[in-house]
Parts: sequence; structure tokens; C-alpha cells
Amino acid sequence: MGEIKAKKQTRVNVTDSFWRKYMKIVRDEMIPFQWEALNDRVPDAPLSHAMKNFKIAAGEEQGEFYGMVFQDSDVAKWLEAVAYTLETDPNPELEKIADGVIDLLEKAQQEDGYLNTYFTIKEPEKRWASLRDNHELYCAGHFIEAAVAYYHATGKRKFLDIMCRFADYIDSVFGKEDGKLHGYPGHQEIELALVKLYQATGEERYLNLSRYFIDERGKEPNYFVVEREKNKAGVFEQFYPGHEKMKKYNQSHKPVREQTEAVGHAVRAVYMYAAMADLAYHTGDESLIKACYTLWKNVVQKQMYITAGIGSNVDGESFSFDYDLPNDLAYSETCASIGLVFWAKRMLELEADAQFADVMERALYNGTISGMDLDGKRFFYVNPLEVSPKKCERREKQHVKPVRQKWFGCACCPPNLARLIASIGRYIYSQKEDTVFVHLYIANENEVEINGNRTQFRLKANYPWDGDIEFSVDPETESQFTVALRLPGWCRNATLAVNDERIDLKTVNQKGYLYIHRKWKKGDRIYLRFAMPVERIKAHPNVKENAGKVALQRGPVVYCLEEQDNGANLHNIFIPRNAKLQAIHQPDLLNGVTVITGQAERIDESTWGHELYKAQEPKMVPTTFTAIPYYSWCNRQPGEMIVWVNETK
Amino acid sequence: MGEIKAKKQTRVNVTDSFWRKYMKIVRDEMIPFQWEALNDRVPDAPLSHAMKNFKIAAGEEQGEFYGMVFQDSDVAKWLEAVAYTLETDPNPELEKIADGVIDLLEKAQQEDGYLNTYFTIKEPEKRWASLRDNHELYCAGHFIEAAVAYYHATGKRKFLDIMCRFADYIDSVFGKEDGKLHGYPGHQEIELALVKLYQATGEERYLNLSRYFIDERGKEPNYFVVEREKNKAGVFEQFYPGHEKMKKYNQSHKPVREQTEAVGHAVRAVYMYAAMADLAYHTGDESLIKACYTLWKNVVQKQMYITAGIGSNVDGESFSFDYDLPNDLAYSETCASIGLVFWAKRMLELEADAQFADVMERALYNGTISGMDLDGKRFFYVNPLEVSPKKCERREKQHVKPVRQKWFGCACCPPNLARLIASIGRYIYSQKEDTVFVHLYIANENEVEINGNRTQFRLKANYPWDGDIEFSVDPETESQFTVALRLPGWCRNATLAVNDERIDLKTVNQKGYLYIHRKWKKGDRIYLRFAMPVERIKAHPNVKENAGKVALQRGPVVYCLEEQDNGANLHNIFIPRNAKLQAIHQPDLLNGVTVITGQAERIDESTWGHELYKAQEPKMVPTTFTAIPYYSWCNRQPGEMIVWVNETK
Repeated sequence: MGEIKAKKQTRVNVTDSFWRKYMKIVRDEMIPFQWEALNDRVPDAPLSHAMKNFKIAAGEEQGEFYGMVFQDSDVAKWLEAVAYTLETDPNPELEKIADGVIDLLEKAQQEDGYLNTYFTIKEPEKRWASLRDNHELYCAGHFIEAAVAYYHATGKRKFLDIMCRFADYIDSVFGKEDGKLHGYPGHQEIELALVKLYQATGEERYLNLSRYFIDERGKEPNYFVVEREKNKAGVFEQFYPGHEKMKKYNQSHKPVREQTEAVGHAVRAVYMYAAMADLAYHTGDESLIKACYTLWKNVVQKQMYITAGIGSNVDGESFSFDYDLPNDLAYSETCASIGLVFWAKRMLELEADAQFADVMERALYNGTISGMDLDGKRFFYVNPLEVSPKKCERREKQHVKPVRQKWFGCACCPPNLARLIASIGRYIYSQKEDTVFVHLYIANENEVEINGNRTQFRLKANYPWDGDIEFSVDPETESQFTVALRLPGWCRNATLAVNDERIDLKTVNQKGYLYIHRKWKKGDRIYLRFAMPVERIKAHPNVKENAGKVALQRGPVVYCLEEQDNGANLHNIFIPRNAKLQAIHQPDLLNGVTVITGQAERIDESTWGHELYKAQEPKMVPTTFTAIPYYSWCNRQPGEMIVWVNETK
Repeated sequence: MGEIKAKKQTRVNVTDSFWRKYMKIVRDEMIPFQWEALNDRVPDAPLSHAMKNFKIAAGEEQGEFYGMVFQDSDVAKWLEAVAYTLETDPNPELEKIADGVIDLLEKAQQEDGYLNTYFTIKEPEKRWASLRDNHELYCAGHFIEAAVAYYHATGKRKFLDIMCRFADYIDSVFGKEDGKLHGYPGHQEIELALVKLYQATGEERYLNLSRYFIDERGKEPNYFVVEREKNKAGVFEQFYPGHEKMKKYNQSHKPVREQTEAVGHAVRAVYMYAAMADLAYHTGDESLIKACYTLWKNVVQKQMYITAGIGSNVDGESFSFDYDLPNDLAYSETCASIGLVFWAKRMLELEADAQFADVMERALYNGTISGMDLDGKRFFYVNPLEVSPKKCERREKQHVKPVRQKWFGCACCPPNLARLIASIGRYIYSQKEDTVFVHLYIANENEVEINGNRTQFRLKANYPWDGDIEFSVDPETESQFTVALRLPGWCRNATLAVNDERIDLKTVNQKGYLYIHRKWKKGDRIYLRFAMPVERIKAHPNVKENAGKVALQRGPVVYCLEEQDNGANLHNIFIPRNAKLQAIHQPDLLNGVTVITGQAERIDESTWGHELYKAQEPKMVPTTFTAIPYYSWCNRQPGEMIVWVNETK
């Protein structure tokens, strides 16, 4: 059963000019750089010691453990990114390195299947002693994800077998049965990983173990509270002074099915929601499905930036309260938006509703890739929607960096971006029986088996800059099936044709997917044309910071103004409601972007005088402004940036 | 000489209905309450122990010191407020209590004149060991100010003599001579106190000691740096990681004459600037005068909120960089605005320029008294210009309290308010030779000696609600002198008459003062009429937070919108530029205030729907808004408040 599922995993060949650039960066820059970093060969970088830890645990070297308690996960995320890369761009040399790492993992694995260098080298007696803080199950989850990816990419089972042994051991330790620990992870991750392991192997015990972790979470007495009474303060104590805050921080404040609002650490939350959607899909559990929808609605209707940034609060890197979305104080961690992509894709598997794909796309073109520069060498953890560099010196804004930083000591976001980008092809399609869903307009080629008949798909597009899509359907032999293409939520005017036959969208639109059911033959072409004007976006009136402000969006891309193009004091620019806005593609700017320009009014600083306050309107002067895609900000001179611009009648 | 000066101190009888209410609160509520607090008789209040410390130091009781290193200053500020109160409202019972405290101070004073309970009881070997942190000279300054006030109020010299002995001892310890400590206070205060002591006693050595402290400050090698190398980390270390930040924090980063921008802890800064102005006045030192003007310009043109709040940065309760005046993150400590009043009054002595009185008045009617509620029972340290109570839960806004707090453990602002209000009469007038200046339109009666001739002044007004002023000049015998009345900076339309003779303002206006020189006789009346329309105020275009926003001001009073009058989501109210704004006096509201009402537009939350973002203008609906004086906010239901309101064309 597992084998069949594994084979169903199609290998999408991404030909997209937008994403290929990023994939190339991951392959040629990030993966080699991180390998050097993991081996402590990057000059002036903080010590990683991650590979060294494995060598010590494997008995190949002497020494002490060094690093965070979750240092191992850096190796796991690297392996996962490597796997996706190998799938699309075979590279025997890289594969050999990865195989070497996997050999090392095997040696570092304990007799009973346990694998974690910290608790092997440094505190073996503390194994499972603090599920709340110690990240052992989190690390295990990342290795499982990597192992599944590596198995799909290479067909080699060794890594998968290592992780099955570890998963089996975990299964022997945790569960509702007497004599087992009734705990669950402080940082969710293994839950979704176990579903992947189940899909890859067909072993239901992995699905059940994942379900156990999800079902047990938040029961009273709270496991972490009981556990904490036995322990001293842990490393994450600072994030939760008091048990109540801790419980919300890691979403153990109530059973998951009773959770209606997204709370706590945003990455933990969305990883968990993703696992919940996975389990709901595989088990058909109605109460879990309902919880997924309720939480989704809360996040996307009340707690998400226009960039798909989530977790607005630096305190605990967490969700805040409804509509609390300050632009300048945003936390909005890159990893949280990546997790939102994971969750959105799983919601799409539950139901082909374009709202899920809209959010996934919003995250992919905005709040995820804003986390890296165009060279893949510098990174943001925090993705603000308004920056004035000097204001970042204030204590309240210390988390907001005005420029991207080099690879970090605690390196969660960069490798998470690497694995997302390297696997971007996996987010384009879904298949349910004889329906193939197209969620994203990323140019690609793909071969799919439908009703035992192989069909070639090819998507041609110059997305996100252009809304013209050509989708080729070439079945080996004529065949009846359905192609369902997403009508993006941002699009208000679209046309659809199959070959030379125009189709009325209304007749085929169901929850934002255009269902084309017919007998397909070689050479069939679907033509989609999404009008892509510049849109003026307004925020919900409960978002205090955005009243009287407008954001610009074109297609899925959210724009911002930078000081580089518009001078300092961006807050003095007022875009009139009737301003004519023009989109201009600039192939040589920022790796090729479409910019938006328009006429606006601007407060004239020069004629105001020296008074700090006076009873006089400042002089307004006409100005031209230029907006660039948000994801591309801070790739030139550092300076001010705003997404939400003042508006005037 | 001192005696003469002391006698020149006139006793202004404040009859003003606005300020009398506050004076009554100080006399009837705050002074008795603080006396109870100092004696640890307030249930549920944090322990003060301040009187107990004195009893222990005096040998009257056994025990340990308890409290902050500057705990003594609470007693000093209380005594100073008591003194001012006794001056205007004789109260034998209260005076007897104060005399008892003074007896205790005498007993607690050491042989050599030293007086400080912490370093008498707890760490005698540490006397003067950390001028940077230990506040000994700060406490001394407050006792000196209290002693001078008590001497003026009661004519009793005992307290003054105690403090002269202490000052003489300090003079023997500090100075540029060999063998003396070349230090100066970590928290400025004694500098301005010593000038008062000089004025009260005529002893030039106090003026010289003050001058020494001011002149020595900021010389290299920095005294605090050298001192710190000998000590371990002190209590205020947190505010200045590193010497450079420390030096700016306490304004010892350069000699005071070279300082051009206000930096560091705002209260320290303005206390020092006040002393600099004092010294400049008494010595005529041109370089010091120049430094005062330069720093003044920086503060009022680049670092002051419209409420006269200063020190926008919570980090070190400090000045920030130019134009960094965020409304929601404001620190803007009550004490800093009080210090600004001290400084402004001294600048007025240097030069009768209405800009100084304008700022003084702005602070008095806005950013100082906003620090207390209308009952004098609850207090703000921090005075934000925008509050949304739920947002104060964010870590970045923890310093911003949405409601005033009860008297605090570290009780600097409430007693500082008490002494300011109790002495408000001293800010109304100045006299230079045969010119009497009227700075403030606080109703009062005052008897002044000019050219050996006694003259009764009486100011009748219903300020700040009404701009009609009647000023009576009643000399004993006909007499030639000048009355110079301030033309407020906020006023754009005024008339002036003496008796029934109208005077053209332009002919008598010099730097905002209207000079009326004539032979005055009994029954002469000056009539001023200041037009007091509602003014729409705009901020300098470099203040990022206020672009597109308007503040309302009428006379000297700055207004705000509260949730109580306008519902939640105040950011959704847009005041049109042409909106008719009406001022209505409401005698029963908030102890009697003039409110501003007007028509505005409001984003209609109810018709928007559930989408967080969409390409659609929200529906605007007409609304009526009501603005109340900023100082009176948060005296009803807690809720949102904004000073800067969105504006629309």
C-alpha cells in the first residue's frame, strides 16, 4: 500500500522562470553554503557543530555536544532540501555526500532506535524528561520528513528504515496505553511527519501515532504542567511566565478540537493545524475537519497580514488577538508563512476550495520569499510591513531588522525556505480520482496517471507578472477525466477556452475551481486569461493601523514603496483614489519585476518651516511614486519601506 | 542679600477655578495620603518605609533600611509640597507635622552635615562611592528645595540651616581643588536646588558649587567611567549597556556647553537645563546662555509631543532622535513635562520671549496634569497620545498603561505633581526692575513692590476655557512702571485695551509680550480678549506618525477623542478639513470642561463583511464626534484614546 502511494508522488518539472531562479539559488548557493556551515567551515559564522555532534554520537570523533538542544534539526532540514533538489536536478556528488550523512545517522542511532545527539552525548539520563522544551520529537519529525523525501528522490530505503526504527521506538514509548508516556511534543512537527511516513510506507501505526499525539494534546491534567513540576525551568521558560501562557504558547491549552482561535507560537500552531488537516483527510474525522475550518477562518480572516505573514507578536513569536496586525511591530516569521503553505496545501486536499490556494499563493509570492534576498545569502526571520531603519533602534522594535542578516546561529528560517522552494513543484497539483486540480500557475511539465492512462501536462505562463496561461493536456490515448483549474481570488475578470471553444466561467466554477470535464485528446489546450490590473486593497476596518491607507496588489503580488525609489518620508506620500496606476515590467530590476507607478500627492517637507506643530495644512505637491514587489524589498540600499500607503480622496 | 531676595518672593493668591481644584486636591488628598504612605499606613500599598528610615537613622527606632537608594527624596518632595501649601493655605496642624519631620532630619543628620538614611544605616562605607547610581546628591537637592520653600512659607530657619550644613559639607567634598572629589551627580537636581539656596541665603558659595557641578560635567576622563571601573554593576546598569550609552543617559557625554541635542534620561536632562538657565541668569555666562537656547530649540522643535510630553523613548526614559514621536509607544513621563516647566520658567527669566511661556503653558494644561486623575488618586508615569487598551498587552507596549495606577512603589511622578501644583502661583509672574511680566492667565491676586511703591494686581479670567482677561492694576499711589502681558502663541486674533482706550497690539508687542508703560493709578484695568477658536493643528512632516492626521487645540488645551464619547475604533473617524467644529462648555462633565464637537466621516465597520483584505473602499457614514481635553482622558470608562485623528479632504 505504501509503495503504491509513494509511486503516486509525481515528479513535477518546474520550468517557471520565477521559481527556477529560486530553485537554482537553493541548489547552487544555499545547500552548498549550509553544508559548509554545518561543518563549521564558514569563516566568521557562529559555530554550528551540527555535523560534529553526529560524528561524536556515532563514535567517530571525541568531544562534547555543542549547540541548541534542537541543533540536529539543521542537518535534517538540509537533507530534506537536498532530497527535493536531487529529485529535480540529479547530482551524484551531492547524493554521495548525503549518503555519507545518512551512514553517520545510522551509526549515531542507539540500539533501541533513538536518534538525537544532544541526549546521546550530553544528557542521556534526560531522554524525554522535558517534552515541553527539549525538541526531541521535533527533531525526529524533521528527520522523518527528510527520510521520506530522500526515499522518493532516490528510491533508497536506508534513511527511511532508520527513521522507521526511530518511529517504532517512539511508538513504543508514547501512547494512551498504561506504562507508556502520555505526552506529546512541545514543538509540533512529528505529527505531520508521521503522516508522511505513513503515506510512504503504508504502515498505519505511524498514522495512529500521529493521531495519538493530536488527540492527547491539551487534555487535563496538562502533561507539560505535570512534567514542569518535576523539572527546573527550561530554556523556553522566558516565553511563558506561568502555565497558562505556556499552554497557549504550545497550543496545549485545550484539546485541539475545542480550539477556535489561533494562539501561541505561530510555527508550532500551523505545523499542528497542517497535521490536523492531514489526519482529517486520512481518517475522515468530522470533528477534526470542523476544527481545521474554524482555525483556518480565524487565521485568514482575523490574524493574517496582507503578505500572508502570521504571528504578529514578537512575544513568543506568536499569534496576537484578532485584528492586531501592526505594520511596524510585526513579527510575522518567515517560517510561520512557510507553515501556512503546508497547512493550506493540506486544506486543499480536504476540499478543493480556492480560498485555500489563494492563501497558499499569497504566502508563496509574498511573506515566505520576503525572508531571503535575491541571492539567497541574507535572511529575515521577521517580516515587517513598515520599516524606518532608525526606528529599529528603539527597544520596542529590536526584533525588526532593517536589513537581512547572514545565516544565523539558530538557523530555522533559511533551511525551511530551502526545503519549501526545492519542493515547490509539489504545491501545484492535486489529484482526486479522475480529477486533476491545478492550484498554482507555476510553469511546469508533469506526467500523471489517470484511470491507468498516462497524461502529459504542460503549463506555460509568465506568472506572476502576466495572467495569460496555456495549459496543455496530452493523454497517451483519448481519455475522459476532469481538469479543475483555480480561478484566483484576486482575479475579477477572466476568460477560459478549451482549444478554440470559449467557456462561460460561471457554468464551470465551483468554489473557485473551473471544472473541465471532457474526453481529452493529444494536443488539447486550455487557455486562461486572468486580467491583472493593479488593485487597490483596503483592510478590514478593525485593523487600526490601516485606516485611511491602501495597499497595492497585482495578481498575487503585494507591493511596497521603498526609499530607494521614492525618497525618505514615505508616510508623506498620499495616493489619490482616482490615481492612474501603471504596471511596467522591468526585466533588469531586481531579477525582473513588474513595478507599479502612479501619480500621487506628497507633503512638501521643504516649505513647512521649523515649527513642530502649527495650525496650517502642509503644502502638497504632485509626485510620481514607484512600488516594487514586497518580496523584493531591501535588495538595494537599505532604507524605509511601507506596504500600506496613505490614501487621499 | 539673601534676605532681600527671599522677601522679593511674592505670595500669589491663586483664585483660578481651574487650578484651585487641583490645589485643593493636593492639599486635601495628596499630601495627607502621601503622609500616610510615607508612614506605611496605607492598606495594600507597597511598603514605603521612608519615615521609618529617618527614625532609624535618627536613633529613635531600631531596624534596617528599606527601599530604593533614593527613598529619602519622597520625604523631601512631600515637605516641599507641604511648604507651598502652607504658603497659600496656612494649616497649623500640618505645619506641626512638618516641624516634627524636620526635627527628625536634624537628628538623622551626621556630625559632618551628611544626611542620607541609606548611607547612614546600610552602607556608610559607600558614601559617595557611586555618584552615577546612588542619588545622594539628588536627594540632597530635593531637601534643599524643600528647605528653601519651607523657609519662605513659614519664615522658620531650622530646615534651611540643616540643609546649609549639608550643602557646606558637600562643598567641602566636591570641587576642582586638589584633594576634593571631581565628581558630579548621576541624577541632576542639586544644581538647581543650590541656586535656590543661594537666592534664599545670598551665600555665593552655593551658586559656585552649582556652577562647579555644571562645569565639571562631561569632562574627560569621564568621572563615572573611572568610578565604574572601581565598582561592580550598579542598580541602573540596565539602562546603559556600555559607557557610551551611560554617558548620554546622564548627559555626561560632553561638557554641557558643547551639548546641542537633548539626549538621555529626560528628567535628568531638563533638571540640568533648568540649572544651566539659572546659572546663566545669575552669572551672565554667554556660552551657557547659548547652550540653553540651542538645547531648547532642539527639544521644542524636534523632540516634543503636542502635549509638551518629552522623552519619547521607554529605553532609559529618554529622548530619542529628532522627530521620533510615536503616539502609541510614547514614554513622555509626567516628571519630564514637569521639569520642562521648571526649565521654561527659567528661560523666561533669561529673556521675556513668549515662546518659553507658550511651552510652559502647553505643559501645564496638557502633559503634566494628564499624569493624574481628577481626584488625585491615580497617576500616569507614561503619557501616551494613542491608546488601545488591548494593545497594551503587547510586550512592546508594556510601559503604556491604559488606566492610571495607584500611588507607586517608586513614587516620583505623584509628589512631583503635588509640588508643581502647590506652587503654581510662582509661574504666573516675573519682575525685572520696574517691569512686571504676566506669563500665564491664571486668575490670581498679587501684591508687588515696584520702585518702593506697593501695587495690587488682580487677574480675572475663566481660562483656559475663555480668552477674556481682566487685569487690574491698583498702585498705592500713582506710579510709572511697565506691565508686560503675554500674547499667547496659540492666539491669532487678540484685542487689548487699557480702561476704555484700545491699543494696537503691533505697537506694543515685543517677542510675544505686550508692553504697557504708563503712569498707573488705582482702578486701572487692562482688558485682553484672545479669540479662542478651535484650531486644527498639523505636525511637522518629519513626524511619520502624524502624516494625514490632525490634532485639535483650543487655547492652550490639546484635545483627544475617547472611546467613551465616540465608540471604539477611533482610527475610523476622519475629520474633514472643512468640518465645522464647535466648542461647548459642559460644567458637569469632568469637573467642567469645554468639549469640541463636529461632523466627521466614519468607516462603517458593519457593512464591510468578513474579508480581511479586499479591493473595495469601505463605506463611509456621517458621524458626530466629541473631543475632550487631553489632560482629562481616562477619568470615566477605560477605553481607546487618540490625540491625532485621521483627516480627510
